[in-house]
Amino acid sequence: MPERETGEVGWRGASSGVDQTAVRRANLARVLDEIRRAGVASRAEIAARSRLTKATVSNLAADLLDRGLIRESGLRRDGAVGRPGRSLELDGSEITALGLEINSKYLAARGTDLAGRVVVQQRLGFDAMHASPESTIDRLAKLALDAIAELERAESGRAGSYLAGIAVAVPGLVDVPAGKVRYAPNLEWRSIPIAEALRDRLERTSAPIVVDNEANLSALAEWHCTPDPTADLVYLTGEVGIGAGLITDGRLLRGSSGFSGEIGHIPVDPEGQPCGCGRHGCLETKIGLRAVLQAAAPDLAADECDPQEQAHALLQRAENGGPQALAGLEEVGRWLGIGISVLVNLLNPDAVVLGGYLGTVAPYLVPTAMRELRARAVAGDAAACRITASTFGFTAAVRGATSIVIEEVLQNPLRIPARGAVPAAAD
Amino acid sequence: MPERETGEVGWRGASSGVDQTAVRRANLARVLDEIRRAGVASRAEIAARSRLTKATVSNLAADLLDRGLIRESGLRRDGAVGRPGRSLELDGSEITALGLEINSKYLAARGTDLAGRVVVQQRLGFDAMHASPESTIDRLAKLALDAIAELERAESGRAGSYLAGIAVAVPGLVDVPAGKVRYAPNLEWRSIPIAEALRDRLERTSAPIVVDNEANLSALAEWHCTPDPTADLVYLTGEVGIGAGLITDGRLLRGSSGFSGEIGHIPVDPEGQPCGCGRHGCLETKIGLRAVLQAAAPDLAADECDPQEQAHALLQRAENGGPQALAGLEEVGRWLGIGISVLVNLLNPDAVVLGGYLGTVAPYLVPTAMRELRARAVAGDAAACRITASTFGFTAAVRGATSIVIEEVLQNPLRIPARGAVPAAAD
Repeated sequence: MPERETGEVGWRGASSGVDQTAVRRANLARVLDEIRRAGVASRAEIAARSRLTKATVSNLAADLLDRGLIRESGLRRDGAVGRPGRSLELDGSEITALGLEINSKYLAARGTDLAGRVVVQQRLGFDAMHASPESTIDRLAKLALDAIAELERAESGRAGSYLAGIAVAVPGLVDVPAGKVRYAPNLEWRSIPIAEALRDRLERTSAPIVVDNEANLSALAEWHCTPDPTADLVYLTGEVGIGAGLITDGRLLRGSSGFSGEIGHIPVDPEGQPCGCGRHGCLETKIGLRAVLQAAAPDLAADECDPQEQAHALLQRAENGGPQALAGLEEVGRWLGIGISVLVNLLNPDAVVLGGYLGTVAPYLVPTAMRELRARAVAGDAAACRITASTFGFTAAVRGATSIVIEEVLQNPLRIPARGAVPAAAD
Repeated sequence: MPERETGEVGWRGASSGVDQTAVRRANLARVLDEIRRAGVASRAEIAARSRLTKATVSNLAADLLDRGLIRESGLRRDGAVGRPGRSLELDGSEITALGLEINSKYLAARGTDLAGRVVVQQRLGFDAMHASPESTIDRLAKLALDAIAELERAESGRAGSYLAGIAVAVPGLVDVPAGKVRYAPNLEWRSIPIAEALRDRLERTSAPIVVDNEANLSALAEWHCTPDPTADLVYLTGEVGIGAGLITDGRLLRGSSGFSGEIGHIPVDPEGQPCGCGRHGCLETKIGLRAVLQAAAPDLAADECDPQEQAHALLQRAENGGPQALAGLEEVGRWLGIGISVLVNLLNPDAVVLGGYLGTVAPYLVPTAMRELRARAVAGDAAACRITASTFGFTAAVRGATSIVIEEVLQNPLRIPARGAVPAAAD
């Protein structure tokens, strides 16, 4: 039916050639976005806000209903009605997204529907630093298959849910278009084609697979999934590796080849310890999880347990006034402030969000880090941004992963197949 | 379509409701952009490319002609015609832009017309580091008045040119909306209301005055004024101060308060020299012009001469094989590579462009800097971007300043007053 709304987006359209599919995609996304913002909206309200005609909105809404992206509000899912609902709201309960994460010390999965409702969430200790890429991806695929089965079960008795996409977070440099990890220092992986390897192991699903850096996805989780997010934020992963996800002016800053955010490897101490990257005195050797545990709780460092548990044990010691824990965290706070001052002087963000273990022990880091930052920000207090703890803990990366699948559907509703014939346009 | 929007009421209007002025502004800008890209284009060609109707294009073109932004090609400026020209091309010979610069060691002005043709360009030695803000702005205002007179003379005999705007580059942190320098470490200026002070001294002109950071404007010069620019570039000012202008994905990265790019003050050597900012071992103490001259040509450092002349003298010594000059530049190249590696690991640009003196002596810096960068880029050669010399020398900031005035006019042609009645819409 691409012949309908010729040129409704006319004056915002592409500059050459008329691409009817692109026009329709843009108009569907526009209506969907209006519904999402409004919560509930009538066709007339959507027409007024979107500056499309009512007939066009009715036609587009019929299409979105048919794809299961929206529903008529007040209309029960089993077809029984109270009063016939004429208002529209986001549905997507049968459209799902799967986020996966490979971390140095664990694997994780999170499955949600289009509205972000969590259907399945799992995290499992796994020593990826000492496992081969193959066995790591084998284990991740098993986790993914379990999660997909869970996502399908959630809609049991109905036609079955539609998995719109899978996104995988990895702690390293990613060639996003190729779906490859180019280099993951702490895993010692080079040129691993994750998307392809996972595709081979997930034969049952044809959902597209995207691979991205964990810090990027975690930053996107802060941007997509928190109320009133700031448009200029830096997310710091606080795990074995320290990376940064940069949101500037509401967009992820990837750089020219997607290798931005490697703050863990800026040199801060030429006399410092060797780093996983082969250099010395990188920021990661001062504030990475292994370095911190060695300084603040060496007995925990020996233990190959889950980083979330390690972080909580460290927090507990600090709360109990353990002198070594407190001194270690004080030192981490100082180096954290030094690292953040580089970010602040270069990028002038509005907030730096501490993820992973850094978020868990934030109360013991932020005062020292802020003092260091104030002393080092060229613009002084005017640029000394907030340093806050992420509320997502160790789930930030998988949250970001599902959020990019969802955003992609909302931008391009044509990705979701229609279930039946689209009703004729109403007038 | 409102045919006479002489008053510019609400030209940055609210987002709700249908804003006819905004629609007209967008359509005028669109037609103007098509003409600029095409060089010469007929109304029919513009209509086809812009997806506007021919009648609308004719009406918009009449408006643009009336504002002096375009002209009919083949039509001579005195009104005599060969064959009546039906094609349109960018004119703007009567619309001018003025760029000004306050630098630590000089003041500069550049005046162009809308097509970027240079009418006036001047640079004058001035020791702003030891002058008061008042006397500096006095001198800058005199330079500006001379340039404005020049710009007006260029159109002598005609109705007179229209100065669309003045942009001022300063080496410091700028509050752009307020037109204030917040802090300029090397000038020791704090909270200087440049726009206001200049406005007071330029009573004759009512052109809007914008103040921005020199590194930002220089980066915009690279983006606006070079053929095939890369969309991810960092410009480094190579003067007494070292700052960075960041273009990512084709946009200037300002940060949340406009204080981005302060790379000169990232700490690289905790044991290093004191810096103008009050800290020790900042990158600027290693590669700023004063530091370099002290190391590579101490006799030139004593001289309060123009930085361009100093840079050329230093280049000459290196070309003549002067051992101190070569050793000093080798050392600068090393620190430059360290500084650039931080940019590359954080932002992954496609190119780093060396401005000021760094550009002049680039052949003696780049090989060492590249070696250092390759050793320090986490993504290795894949992220080791080009390091090139700006072709704009010490004019980059004033070029960028005129370019932002021109871009602003091209985005918003309604800013330029109409000269006569707009003809009725043609069909």
